[in-house]
Amino acid sequence: MASFIEKGTPAPTAYFTGTVWVNINVKPDEGYNINMATVTFEPKGRTNWHTHVSGQILFVIEGTGYYQEKGKPIEVIQKGDVVKIPKSVEHWHGASHERLMRHIALVPDYDKDKTEWLQPVSDDEYNSIF
Amino acid sequence: MASFIEKGTPAPTAYFTGTVWVNINVKPDEGYNINMATVTFEPKGRTNWHTHVSGQILFVIEGTGYYQEKGKPIEVIQKGDVVKIPKSVEHWHGASHERLMRHIALVPDYDKDKTEWLQPVSDDEYNSIF
Repeated sequence: MASFIEKGTPAPTAYFTGTVWVNINVKPDEGYNINMATVTFEPKGRTNWHTHVSGQILFVIEGTGYYQEKGKPIEVIQKGDVVKIPKSVEHWHGASHERLMRHIALVPDYDKDKTEWLQPVSDDEYNSIF
Repeated sequence: MASFIEKGTPAPTAYFTGTVWVNINVKPDEGYNINMATVTFEPKGRTNWHTHVSGQILFVIEGTGYYQEKGKPIEVIQKGDVVKIPKSVEHWHGASHERLMRHIALVPDYDKDKTEWLQPVSDDEYNSIF
């Protein structure tokens, strides 16, 4: 049986900053029309800015992290939080400065989705939480 | 922000046996074309037999439970397991005899789904793990 406890493999450095691991749990070709992965961000690790045409749902299963939509302040997210990312809204997510963050990430309606990867989250943007 | 840590409300007794709690995390009308809930089964709690036209994905986030597809033996499932339930296959899931089990449950492609609830899992069926 598949396990989502394992960290998986290093996330592609083209789309992520810092140390991040991705464990793909349900692939689009398995017939459920979703893409589902567990992502582990070590402290200061984060995605680039990006968008999903179908939106995205995050379930934070461990630790403390950050989530930000373009033009809004950074929100602190922690174990237990369900983050509902609106369709086509530019955003990023990652660990906090001192603690790792782990989430299950789901892109629904994968046949209609297009994920667009944009620029890295700069240190100035990341540090704007303070 | 929504939380999936909370137990939610009692599951409908027409479709469940024992003490079971349901916390709906993403409703079909929120625009993601999924139905997503956290379900907490106290020991011996379980669903009825049922089917989903779109299949279902379970992420076991706590404890030890059982999963069974019609005509196959009961499988023990535990924290970390990802259960991929095939489309339209009759099955049930629940806690083990001594420990609770908590899972995130996702029905993808909700616009195409039909969930059919069938008969309860009898004590003889439930005890067939021994």
